[in-house]
Amino acid sequence: MARPVIAVLNGPNLNLLGERDPSVYGSETLADIEARCAAYADGLGFDVDCRQSNREGELVDMVQDVRHGAGIVINAGAYTHTSVAIRDALVTVTCPVVEVHISNVHARERFRHYSYLSAVVTGVIVGLGPQGYELAIAAVAARASTT
Amino acid sequence: MARPVIAVLNGPNLNLLGERDPSVYGSETLADIEARCAAYADGLGFDVDCRQSNREGELVDMVQDVRHGAGIVINAGAYTHTSVAIRDALVTVTCPVVEVHISNVHARERFRHYSYLSAVVTGVIVGLGPQGYELAIAAVAARASTT
Amino acid sequence: MARPVIAVLNGPNLNLLGERDPSVYGSETLADIEARCAAYADGLGFDVDCRQSNREGELVDMVQDVRHGAGIVINAGAYTHTSVAIRDALVTVTCPVVEVHISNVHARERFRHYSYLSAVVTGVIVGLGPQGYELAIAAVAARASTT
Amino acid sequence: MARPVIAVLNGPNLNLLGERDPSVYGSETLADIEARCAAYADGLGFDVDCRQSNREGELVDMVQDVRHGAGIVINAGAYTHTSVAIRDALVTVTCPVVEVHISNVHARERFRHYSYLSAVVTGVIVGLGPQGYELAIAAVAARASTT
Amino acid sequence: MARPVIAVLNGPNLNLLGERDPSVYGSETLADIEARCAAYADGLGFDVDCRQSNREGELVDMVQDVRHGAGIVINAGAYTHTSVAIRDALVTVTCPVVEVHISNVHARERFRHYSYLSAVVTGVIVGLGPQGYELAIAAVAARASTT
Amino acid sequence: MARPVIAVLNGPNLNLLGERDPSVYGSETLADIEARCAAYADGLGFDVDCRQSNREGELVDMVQDVRHGAGIVINAGAYTHTSVAIRDALVTVTCPVVEVHISNVHARERFRHYSYLSAVVTGVIVGLGPQGYELAIAAVAARASTT
Amino acid sequence: MARPVIAVLNGPNLNLLGERDPSVYGSETLADIEARCAAYADGLGFDVDCRQSNREGELVDMVQDVRHGAGIVINAGAYTHTSVAIRDALVTVTCPVVEVHISNVHARERFRHYSYLSAVVTGVIVGLGPQGYELAIAAVAARASTT
Amino acid sequence: MARPVIAVLNGPNLNLLGERDPSVYGSETLADIEARCAAYADGLGFDVDCRQSNREGELVDMVQDVRHGAGIVINAGAYTHTSVAIRDALVTVTCPVVEVHISNVHARERFRHYSYLSAVVTGVIVGLGPQGYELAIAAVAARASTT
Amino acid sequence: MARPVIAVLNGPNLNLLGERDPSVYGSETLADIEARCAAYADGLGFDVDCRQSNREGELVDMVQDVRHGAGIVINAGAYTHTSVAIRDALVTVTCPVVEVHISNVHARERFRHYSYLSAVVTGVIVGLGPQGYELAIAAVAARASTT
Amino acid sequence: MARPVIAVLNGPNLNLLGERDPSVYGSETLADIEARCAAYADGLGFDVDCRQSNREGELVDMVQDVRHGAGIVINAGAYTHTSVAIRDALVTVTCPVVEVHISNVHARERFRHYSYLSAVVTGVIVGLGPQGYELAIAAVAARASTT
Amino acid sequence: MARPVIAVLNGPNLNLLGERDPSVYGSETLADIEARCAAYADGLGFDVDCRQSNREGELVDMVQDVRHGAGIVINAGAYTHTSVAIRDALVTVTCPVVEVHISNVHARERFRHYSYLSAVVTGVIVGLGPQGYELAIAAVAARASTT
Amino acid sequence: MARPVIAVLNGPNLNLLGERDPSVYGSETLADIEARCAAYADGLGFDVDCRQSNREGELVDMVQDVRHGAGIVINAGAYTHTSVAIRDALVTVTCPVVEVHISNVHARERFRHYSYLSAVVTGVIVGLGPQGYELAIAAVAARASTT
Repeated sequence: MARPVIAVLNGPNLNLLGERDPSVYGSETLADIEARCAAYADGLGFDVDCRQSNREGELVDMVQDVRHGAGIVINAGAYTHTSVAIRDALVTVTCPVVEVHISNVHARERFRHYSYLSAVVTGVIVGLGPQGYELAIAAVAARASTT
Repeated sequence: MARPVIAVLNGPNLNLLGERDPSVYGSETLADIEARCAAYADGLGFDVDCRQSNREGELVDMVQDVRHGAGIVINAGAYTHTSVAIRDALVTVTCPVVEVHISNVHARERFRHYSYLSAVVTGVIVGLGPQGYELAIAAVAARASTT
Repeated sequence: MARPVIAVLNGPNLNLLGERDPSVYGSETLADIEARCAAYADGLGFDVDCRQSNREGELVDMVQDVRHGAGIVINAGAYTHTSVAIRDALVTVTCPVVEVHISNVHARERFRHYSYLSAVVTGVIVGLGPQGYELAIAAVAARASTT
Repeated sequence: MARPVIAVLNGPNLNLLGERDPSVYGSETLADIEARCAAYADGLGFDVDCRQSNREGELVDMVQDVRHGAGIVINAGAYTHTSVAIRDALVTVTCPVVEVHISNVHARERFRHYSYLSAVVTGVIVGLGPQGYELAIAAVAARASTT
Repeated sequence: MARPVIAVLNGPNLNLLGERDPSVYGSETLADIEARCAAYADGLGFDVDCRQSNREGELVDMVQDVRHGAGIVINAGAYTHTSVAIRDALVTVTCPVVEVHISNVHARERFRHYSYLSAVVTGVIVGLGPQGYELAIAAVAARASTT
Repeated sequence: MARPVIAVLNGPNLNLLGERDPSVYGSETLADIEARCAAYADGLGFDVDCRQSNREGELVDMVQDVRHGAGIVINAGAYTHTSVAIRDALVTVTCPVVEVHISNVHARERFRHYSYLSAVVTGVIVGLGPQGYELAIAAVAARASTT
Repeated sequence: MARPVIAVLNGPNLNLLGERDPSVYGSETLADIEARCAAYADGLGFDVDCRQSNREGELVDMVQDVRHGAGIVINAGAYTHTSVAIRDALVTVTCPVVEVHISNVHARERFRHYSYLSAVVTGVIVGLGPQGYELAIAAVAARASTT
Repeated sequence: MARPVIAVLNGPNLNLLGERDPSVYGSETLADIEARCAAYADGLGFDVDCRQSNREGELVDMVQDVRHGAGIVINAGAYTHTSVAIRDALVTVTCPVVEVHISNVHARERFRHYSYLSAVVTGVIVGLGPQGYELAIAAVAARASTT
Repeated sequence: MARPVIAVLNGPNLNLLGERDPSVYGSETLADIEARCAAYADGLGFDVDCRQSNREGELVDMVQDVRHGAGIVINAGAYTHTSVAIRDALVTVTCPVVEVHISNVHARERFRHYSYLSAVVTGVIVGLGPQGYELAIAAVAARASTT
Repeated sequence: MARPVIAVLNGPNLNLLGERDPSVYGSETLADIEARCAAYADGLGFDVDCRQSNREGELVDMVQDVRHGAGIVINAGAYTHTSVAIRDALVTVTCPVVEVHISNVHARERFRHYSYLSAVVTGVIVGLGPQGYELAIAAVAARASTT
Repeated sequence: MARPVIAVLNGPNLNLLGERDPSVYGSETLADIEARCAAYADGLGFDVDCRQSNREGELVDMVQDVRHGAGIVINAGAYTHTSVAIRDALVTVTCPVVEVHISNVHARERFRHYSYLSAVVTGVIVGLGPQGYELAIAAVAARASTT
Repeated sequence: MARPVIAVLNGPNLNLLGERDPSVYGSETLADIEARCAAYADGLGFDVDCRQSNREGELVDMVQDVRHGAGIVINAGAYTHTSVAIRDALVTVTCPVVEVHISNVHARERFRHYSYLSAVVTGVIVGLGPQGYELAIAAVAARASTT
């Protein structure tokens, strides 16, 4: 029987992880993080569906696609701070959603302090590096309806 | 002889109409609304060209495509509040343009009160539900050059 | 049997229509617009009750007078941007209300961009000239209880 | 010998008390409140002079009329938040003035948090319903010159 | 033959001049000032038409009444800082208009620093006491068409 | 049988009343005011429990202590303008709460115009001196459950 | 041999958990949460040192006390939004610190959106209920020096 | 016997009058205006001392030089909007000072709406062209001590 | 041997150059400008790689593609003012980047005055028309590593 | 005979001086600074009374305790930027007060630029390290009444 | 025959180039830059007239002097951000003007992001070091009338 | 052998000390203060170089002149609040700099609360009258390199 699936969505420039400013984002690549997510979710009885896009509209599409699944972990990257469209898509979601940021956005430029998404998700995890994705999966899993 | 064509452009998440928060947006689907537009325009002697996209850049392309037609009815959804690019595309339009919002955006979150588009369109219709599209077609038709 | 009545309320300086800056407001006089409203409503089975005042308090009185009628079309002119009192009166209304502006206020001075009324009305129609009144009557009529 | 008179001035839409949103304003009508004021003041040896208007300028006139009486209790309703003219009239008053609001304006829309009047009156009573008028009369009476 | 007429319009609370805070406004009454205006205008070959109201809408009416005369001198008092309606009325005026303030509003509360009217009048005279009216009449007279 | 108890809580620097700037706060000491409160409450069938602290956290403790009593009268002094913690404590209260300020805070420095507490209390009484405490007790008593 | 100790610090009004607005904060008491933290940390080889205070200065003292331990989990409650003093204390800390909020503060009042602490901690976990404390312990444990 | 002297001070770029944007500033040169001032003052029994500089510090020096004369008419040009130093110099003046602007600064760019000088001068005359200097001299003369 | 390549990236609506508001943008088409760039770069020993897109995400992709080339000239059009995503992509670039705007954005609408990109590029050239691209190529060429 | 006493009050986290970020605050401990103050004051004929607390309310108490002494030197640390309560306590002081900051707060985070205390003290000394305390004692001593 | 002359104007502290913070401004002195300008202009058939001043008013004078020449290159240094007077002088100029900044002002303090000059010049070149002057000369030369 | 020299620079209107508003600035003249500085510095083994100017650019020149001396004491008067140019000059200084204000600028107009200079000087002394200069000399002397 198919296991419940948690979507792991990553936004713009996160395809460059490992290469982009390692002092801020660490040395793991996106592939490393997705592998880590798969392993961690597996231990909790979930599969993951990992996707990445640099395009705001594709992220809207992705959220619409997975909005009735077991849960969503989303790092919308720069669109976090500018996208009402992704926010609107998240409002239609019926599963738990956890927003993740690898770096501590509150200690960076002022325009990174405000998130359009935070007010419409279940919870937010900031500044804990790649581990943040695991913690988000744990939080989603604890709230997921798996029937 | 081909009848003049009014473009009806819908933006992000409007493909979910009917399902997305019916207490705010009503129970008609986008297909219902597009059918309603076609019927209403037909009565005025116009065809409609209905398109939808979740992507900002595709909406820019669409506006460029139809900018010398009989008129444009546009509900840019969330991009209304963030897109200078769609605004810039609208500035190049030579036909009448009416901006439509199904819900009363002025009674919702503060960031929905400002529209980048309103200053560069012919008129704006807000909060009148699917009927708003019909009224917009009426307004465009009254101003359209059909020679 | 008496037909249902839609009130058409106009605020300050709208008594000067036709004379005041025709490039912005067009050449129709207020009497022209009121006649147009009567004709249009008649076609939908409604009578109109047209009133105008330059005084904020009289507009409050008018709204109170007609608040249990079939519907209200209101262009509060300059008081749109400054009057909490008219807003408070509109909150007591039990029929549909559509706010109309002849010109595109979003393309004019910044202090005309905010309306105290929009958040408490059914819908708003902006920038469509005298036709805006007709569209507003259509919208009110579609929502009016006529029993 | 004539007893000293406390003026009780009510502003726009307060003539609708009892009918207007009872969950916010309670079920007493303005007549009920004025009767309550008269009875309460009588117990303290004062007459009351109760007036209401929906018009800003009439409230300015009223304040000018009663400004050398025993005291003023004023609920300027919506004009509280927009009227410099009533403020200027209150500055010319030589008797104690207490500003009253039936509902807790600080728990409502942001534009109701600022009062143009508060800085130029003796005191302010907010959120205590019709009893607020009685307390205001008590405060005015304690400060009134009755010689 | 009738001489050209300059309207001298005074707004709320200016009927209390002489009594209201003489340290700010001086000891001349409104009647004194109107007499002074009449005498000064007479010397320049003009009659004056002096009016005062505490009501915003009446001031709108007055401006509409006199807008094709020889000129207007207006001290809108507190409405200076809140009235878009009077501003809109002034825009329809075809004669020169000079805005006057008796006291130096720039040295008083912050909300008196902004005037809705200044951007649409010919000129502004502030802080020069009753003499300000005379200087305003001089300015209007110099620009008036008296044919 | 024990009578119901109204708590009277005073915040920082109010222990200096009578000495601190008598032109603003009057000459009564805190002991005078507490005695006045006791006498006034006694006449209404209530006891009072008067406490004062200069420390924000102690005021949080006090509110928690008395939050299921007959009612609370609170003058949080300077913490009114800075304390989210006292606000949060007040939200847990099940009895009526009236906020009191001896002086007219709206006529003083700008940072005294905003109160974190007002939005979560029953009502507010400002600028009526020590009498304000009596009026607050009257308001609390009228709303208190005394069964 | 003594195990490394993670401090779990809770601020004002968190002693009321379970009783205070369960729809926002859930039904677990602070004792429940502290027990949960102890059990979770035990599984990772850590002891916990749980403290709570309603007083800002005591929280400063607590941070100073534990600042060279294995790690800190802190929910400063209302002081999150007002305390520069706790921020300054956190800057002196040499171990990892994770800030926790039980409710989604980004979906509540505007003044809860800004945290003085976030810019100086390792990471932040918001809106995940009591589980948030466990995730924070996991994050601290992964970064703790346990030599 | 020497006649009393009114200083007429002009600031940056006013030496270009007549040439600089005549649609805004008119066609009179600075020499024309200074001649007009001399003639007008002569009729009132005063001499004028006309100076111009493009340099902020020289205008400070000029104000210091003439601060105990019969009066000052000053058009500080662009420094009006940026100079605290000229403001501070004006505060030391013991004679009447009238600030003049040829164009209506309130109808121009936003940064021209605020004047650092207006709060510390006797009065302000705006938008009345070169005649503004004459009116200012009239106002100064009426207040000048000529003993 | 391959010559070093400078990427010339153009954003939304720049495909309409020559047609879109020639009074602002001039009459050259995008093809004209790209040809001009190729010719100019050729003279300096560089090839150009010209791309255009109306979509924000595609511009992110383009920047990622060319980020280790000889240099980048970018006119992000409307996305200049709204895109954190393109900014984040530019931060990963290792070659010189010059931002170009054909029109003088500082003389246009206020929302065009702020650029998210300027703080992370090498330099900015504004208002010099198509020549701006040539100057940008000159600047990039002077800094390019061509080994 | 007892010598006059200058109070030296230090606020939160200053007990960590010498340990806390020495590059900002230097290597002297609070004990060092207090000893330095004692020695310096002794040379001027004064004793010192040195106190420190991390708690806002205790600092209010301290100010109340010493407010009629010879003078106060106060470094309120983080409470400088948030405490209206300490400000209110300082207003009741009858001796000279000098505010000291060891580091240059104007070169640090924006929220450290505003001090609630500065407007109600005699003077302020910023950025001069521990020497700042000596200079403050010199300033207090010069103004102290020692009779 | 005299060649056309381009003025190169430098403002405050630019006389220290080469010495002042070389990591920001580079190691070339002002003399180096002026020599570079002369050589570059010579190649285009122009002479240069290089001037520098630390004084705002002298820069106003300089702009007035050269405003009918072949063109102006101006780096107003710190006055860029504060001087309305230089802006007003630039408005009177009839030749092309290019504003230059050596460093990337958009990546520095916030108060350097706004330029009073940019809205009234032909174009702006930022962040390209001394080469920026050459590019500016190229831009001016391309637009200069040399007849 | 020449002693090290501390520059004492005073800005606009400080030449009027003793005469200008003695209730704010005291009765000492600038000459008195300069003599006091010389005597005080002499006791510490320093000479002083006292200069004053009303002109911003001259103060820039002065700072450049003395920037490699033993130290600078600067009271820039009104330019403190408006001059980026003096700030930029101070950044090039290699000796200690102390900013002085005679009056307590934090208790005066709001625009005097911000200093462009404070962030780039060693320290700031405010509100301590002429003694502030002596304390500043003490602070500079303690940091001066005198080799």
